[in-house]
Amino acid sequence: MNDYTPTPADKFSFGLWTVGFRGNDPFGAATRPELDAVQAVQRLSDLGAWGVTFHDDDLFGFGADEAERERILARFRRALDETGLTVPMVTTNLFGHPVFKDGALTANDRDVRRFALRKMLRNVELAAELGARTFVAWGGREGAETDAATDLRAALDRYKEGIDLVCEFIRDRGYDLRLALEPKPNEPRGDLFLPTVGHVLAFIDQLAHPDMVGVNPEVGHEQMAGLNYTHGLAQALWAGKLFHLDLNGQHGAKYDQDLRFGAGDVKSAFFTVDLLETAGYTGPRHFDFKPLRTDLDQDVWTSAEGCMRNYLILKDRAAAFRADPRVQQALHNARIPELSQPTTTPGEKPEDLLHADGDFDPESAAQRSMHYEHLDQLALEHLMGI
Amino acid sequence: MNDYTPTPADKFSFGLWTVGFRGNDPFGAATRPELDAVQAVQRLSDLGAWGVTFHDDDLFGFGADEAERERILARFRRALDETGLTVPMVTTNLFGHPVFKDGALTANDRDVRRFALRKMLRNVELAAELGARTFVAWGGREGAETDAATDLRAALDRYKEGIDLVCEFIRDRGYDLRLALEPKPNEPRGDLFLPTVGHVLAFIDQLAHPDMVGVNPEVGHEQMAGLNYTHGLAQALWAGKLFHLDLNGQHGAKYDQDLRFGAGDVKSAFFTVDLLETAGYTGPRHFDFKPLRTDLDQDVWTSAEGCMRNYLILKDRAAAFRADPRVQQALHNARIPELSQPTTTPGEKPEDLLHADGDFDPESAAQRSMHYEHLDQLALEHLMGI
Amino acid sequence: MNDYTPTPADKFSFGLWTVGFRGNDPFGAATRPELDAVQAVQRLSDLGAWGVTFHDDDLFGFGADEAERERILARFRRALDETGLTVPMVTTNLFGHPVFKDGALTANDRDVRRFALRKMLRNVELAAELGARTFVAWGGREGAETDAATDLRAALDRYKEGIDLVCEFIRDRGYDLRLALEPKPNEPRGDLFLPTVGHVLAFIDQLAHPDMVGVNPEVGHEQMAGLNYTHGLAQALWAGKLFHLDLNGQHGAKYDQDLRFGAGDVKSAFFTVDLLETAGYTGPRHFDFKPLRTDLDQDVWTSAEGCMRNYLILKDRAAAFRADPRVQQALHNARIPELSQPTTTPGEKPEDLLHADGDFDPESAAQRSMHYEHLDQLALEHLMGI
Amino acid sequence: MNDYTPTPADKFSFGLWTVGFRGNDPFGAATRPELDAVQAVQRLSDLGAWGVTFHDDDLFGFGADEAERERILARFRRALDETGLTVPMVTTNLFGHPVFKDGALTANDRDVRRFALRKMLRNVELAAELGARTFVAWGGREGAETDAATDLRAALDRYKEGIDLVCEFIRDRGYDLRLALEPKPNEPRGDLFLPTVGHVLAFIDQLAHPDMVGVNPEVGHEQMAGLNYTHGLAQALWAGKLFHLDLNGQHGAKYDQDLRFGAGDVKSAFFTVDLLETAGYTGPRHFDFKPLRTDLDQDVWTSAEGCMRNYLILKDRAAAFRADPRVQQALHNARIPELSQPTTTPGEKPEDLLHADGDFDPESAAQRSMHYEHLDQLALEHLMGI
Repeated sequence: MNDYTPTPADKFSFGLWTVGFRGNDPFGAATRPELDAVQAVQRLSDLGAWGVTFHDDDLFGFGADEAERERILARFRRALDETGLTVPMVTTNLFGHPVFKDGALTANDRDVRRFALRKMLRNVELAAELGARTFVAWGGREGAETDAATDLRAALDRYKEGIDLVCEFIRDRGYDLRLALEPKPNEPRGDLFLPTVGHVLAFIDQLAHPDMVGVNPEVGHEQMAGLNYTHGLAQALWAGKLFHLDLNGQHGAKYDQDLRFGAGDVKSAFFTVDLLETAGYTGPRHFDFKPLRTDLDQDVWTSAEGCMRNYLILKDRAAAFRADPRVQQALHNARIPELSQPTTTPGEKPEDLLHADGDFDPESAAQRSMHYEHLDQLALEHLMGI
Repeated sequence: MNDYTPTPADKFSFGLWTVGFRGNDPFGAATRPELDAVQAVQRLSDLGAWGVTFHDDDLFGFGADEAERERILARFRRALDETGLTVPMVTTNLFGHPVFKDGALTANDRDVRRFALRKMLRNVELAAELGARTFVAWGGREGAETDAATDLRAALDRYKEGIDLVCEFIRDRGYDLRLALEPKPNEPRGDLFLPTVGHVLAFIDQLAHPDMVGVNPEVGHEQMAGLNYTHGLAQALWAGKLFHLDLNGQHGAKYDQDLRFGAGDVKSAFFTVDLLETAGYTGPRHFDFKPLRTDLDQDVWTSAEGCMRNYLILKDRAAAFRADPRVQQALHNARIPELSQPTTTPGEKPEDLLHADGDFDPESAAQRSMHYEHLDQLALEHLMGI
Repeated sequence: MNDYTPTPADKFSFGLWTVGFRGNDPFGAATRPELDAVQAVQRLSDLGAWGVTFHDDDLFGFGADEAERERILARFRRALDETGLTVPMVTTNLFGHPVFKDGALTANDRDVRRFALRKMLRNVELAAELGARTFVAWGGREGAETDAATDLRAALDRYKEGIDLVCEFIRDRGYDLRLALEPKPNEPRGDLFLPTVGHVLAFIDQLAHPDMVGVNPEVGHEQMAGLNYTHGLAQALWAGKLFHLDLNGQHGAKYDQDLRFGAGDVKSAFFTVDLLETAGYTGPRHFDFKPLRTDLDQDVWTSAEGCMRNYLILKDRAAAFRADPRVQQALHNARIPELSQPTTTPGEKPEDLLHADGDFDPESAAQRSMHYEHLDQLALEHLMGI
Repeated sequence: MNDYTPTPADKFSFGLWTVGFRGNDPFGAATRPELDAVQAVQRLSDLGAWGVTFHDDDLFGFGADEAERERILARFRRALDETGLTVPMVTTNLFGHPVFKDGALTANDRDVRRFALRKMLRNVELAAELGARTFVAWGGREGAETDAATDLRAALDRYKEGIDLVCEFIRDRGYDLRLALEPKPNEPRGDLFLPTVGHVLAFIDQLAHPDMVGVNPEVGHEQMAGLNYTHGLAQALWAGKLFHLDLNGQHGAKYDQDLRFGAGDVKSAFFTVDLLETAGYTGPRHFDFKPLRTDLDQDVWTSAEGCMRNYLILKDRAAAFRADPRVQQALHNARIPELSQPTTTPGEKPEDLLHADGDFDPESAAQRSMHYEHLDQLALEHLMGI
């Protein structure tokens, strides 16, 4: 019997800022004390996690000097060594400090853009040092509240310039590191640039080194736009660009909730896990959630544990779904395997197709039922463990 | 004084299905009689429109035989000749008939996919014959209500196969025609593939002939996902992919309203026109709207007239906004021209930047106000004609 | 072992328009043939349903004459007698015919308002004849696309006048019948009057006979506004106004999906069933869903069966949740029983309270964790059958 | 010529927390220094405002002792006296401090509920002392992230108990003060109780002293649920319950933006002002907005000025709209005056109506156009000052 206890082989990773979230929100103060990074590493390791990730400011605080950084880093490394936890990903905070109030890589103020890039490069160095393979960039302040406040195409020029420069830096230094850009439609800005998985993928294609850059889709960020997260993942996988991901929970088009994974739309989470596991995604299963601010102490870890446990439960259920002969029959009845057959025959040219299938009768083809209600009910029952 | 009367030089075009919309909806029957296509051409021409567009089924009805098509087409051409109206764009209805209930290019049923492609190719022939330069493809049934009902990556493979084949056909025939794919997040399917401008742009990059394919963004479709339409246009322009567009109105995340252009969020419409006019977009200003089903007879034309009139008013207002010295000062104060300056200096390498600007003080830079409230108020007052 | 087979004791009822939905939508034609009402009665009975409901037009078609009505009704009654199915609720179609394009009880056109009321009264007669105890009124066309198009307060006056008149009719005739008004935020109108459960409850309080009128909340209608359906039910129950309900599924703020119950947000459905079963709701469990238009023939019944089956599964899971000692402990730890204790002590006056609890320390009280992450995880695991 | 300069006769009021908003958000720190309340009073007065409002914590900070309160209050009163600014409304902060993390009047923890009530009563005393006539209560933490975390009906019992007690206190003390409850759908909790205008109105009807309690609708809060703010105001006015309001701007279903009034959907703002001015609303025009955090110093006041200026511009435009003979003709053509005629004739009984109008022909009545496109276009052109 499966008790859904995670092990490092499951490749679960957590941001320091997740278990370390203190519970402040736009209308209320922090409810929890600061969490020591070393304690976070130890607790995550105890729970069966594999990796820990962080923004520079999570570890050092904005503006820490060199000595302070070294001191903190040494202690952090020791904890990593002791626990065996890895650092698969590092990211930069380019949104918290007031200097970034108008953006970082796309701030109108060129001095700010240069400062943001230096902060990012410096953190790329750190990421490489710690052996991270992915560097996430969330443009949390790249956006606007009014369309009067920016020049949209110039902003994209600057965004590209910034990301190109980071890639060049990585190449110059010879680091084994890839970038993953994280889309979000809004919050904290009224409209963010690169609002969805699609916009990021399209942006990547305009970069100098598109092969070095992928996407980091977050469940809640796509769902805030009413989009299907699993569909977004699939398009990223299809483009070979799913470099990293952020798992959490959300209830539709409202503020960014960052619920633990499995909370929110659990049936969507079921299909997400199903896709990741069947598509052979081998990257980290990274959780970017915020334990509820009503909950203190041990409850933070209960929430972290729940993220991993829900992933494992859903993985189990999705596997059972795929293995069930009734499901296989239903997939066949819904003609899903037929979707993997090319539409044209080998060698068939457009002109050939134009004159083919003279006997096709749309009225009679319209009579073929897809049987999706049955298939969806089977999925739901597998999710519910019937 | 400007009386906002359109002329063909404004390049306004309308779908036959817009003024011809009969007012049926999921809960009610048609309120208006069928509109004769020839009458539509004449009325649109009288109002000052430049072009008319259509789905095959708008003109012929699904399943019309060759003789019927020829007869209808001859009459339609005569109306075009008499009025001087052009056909800048043609599109195919791959969503109305029950045979497309599971999609067209991505239907699980291969026979249906082949039929859909033939319907599309046949219509491409017609588009070329009529001198259209753009062929729009809206995948209105390419999607799913449950993630169990498809294989998402296989669906994208088939989508690509279909679009590639259409491009090949155009090249084989030597047509001077480009494709424009139209994104929409949902409705009539629960989730549509290629839900936003970003997803379409990203998809195009995976095609065999990406240069032949662009995007056809619709105001309401982006706004249904809570996205900023003007931002979407800007990213399409930035990628050189704004081949066509659909102007209308919408009130946020709900069913597809297709209000006349200017209804809905008029300030967003102001910035849309501002972008199109300042970015040098030279394509059609195409309206894809539905006159309210409460309105009959002449009101349909009042609605069409309103679309064009609102565009011209907003164009006038946007030009006055850009020309206003107070606005120019405010843009300067908001450092917007600075966004067009490269972030790096000529020849500056990442390593150089990493060690530059030693005297930059983030605390003091954070004290620079952006003055966006003032700038946005100026825009609003120009919109309101103060 | 529970096999989740429904029986009439479960009080499941279905609208004729649900299993009879033909699959037309704003972009496509019907995919299924008309369903004979008698066949619907027989099939629903075979599946274990208890009741059938309908709009007048579902049974007779708009404009059927007296003889036609009698003929159809006789046949329908025979089917009811043979199967034992009841008619717990009847409703009127005041939205489908073009005459209602501007509304029914709130149409600007007084003739239309009078016609709508006659249609409704006539159907109230029928409801009483058939022994229905609830008469649902959904104002599907009471609304507007532009705020210029109505006088909002006058519209509410007319809405009240209409409902008051129907109540008076019921009293005059001595029928044992209550009204249940159904809220919806939008679609098919841009904004509907009485958009949520709250607005309906508030409206009822202004009526001449508030005791005769309750609310008929629909899952998807509240979720289209991003509202929590279970919260809406609770406020209706709290006000003694949950006279009827419409169970189905939806994916957030988009067009009205009417998925089968259990599809959409299944965890929300779990809490809905939990509330209904623990609050002692004794009314019908009425399904107002639309089988997917991709599905034909037998699949329609699979979908209907799924609605009932999912209700029974969730009922089972919710009962197990409430019975689980770990859950009871967690509820206790979250102080939920304490919410049922009055805040004041018996006889305590405001002045007393103002000077009480001098030793209360907000800082230390803030340290009490609510343990909601654990409680929510237990709910999720019960839903998933762990 | 109107220069849209406000005077106290316009009854514009501002919360201290609006111009005093420091710019912190979930992802970033404050960008502006603390604003002294006395300075706020002076600046608002200089700009032409009439009133200032506040939460207790805005003025004193949480936990200020008696002496500190007196000292601050004396200085604040002096500024009021010097400027002539009134305090039309006072409210209590029951959401910021961690002690309220699970709610205030509906917290599971009874001690917290009692503390919240004391804080509220104490502030009611202050409101009365300062001559405020309205006491606003926003239940910013009354809600839940998971339906497992509360007992919804018990929560409403406690909510009612709390509000009833405050009313009793006001009556006991003989204060001339009314309560106004403020709805919001979500944020900072996942789902808030009393999410919309409708839910508040319905709740009021269950109170011990419903006459003492009204609603305080906020533009953005209704729009976050995709609801029409003007419709909400109209239902509140219709029920005699529009005791106060919060004017600001929002872009649909996302986080609470609190833009200055006029930003966001300006056409909706036009109809809001039109309703307030034509319905004879005599209460404060209260702004609850947050100046953009990109803007510092003087820009805060530019933003405040913009709120008032936009109200006056829209008032002017709405008056011109109503006075325009073309509009009056269009309203007539749309039969809007007919909506104010009772549907029944004097003395007509339901039975009479049932048999009246034998010659009514729905088919021919369906042919009457409503001409709403024209009417809406006239409204839009008046908004744009054509």
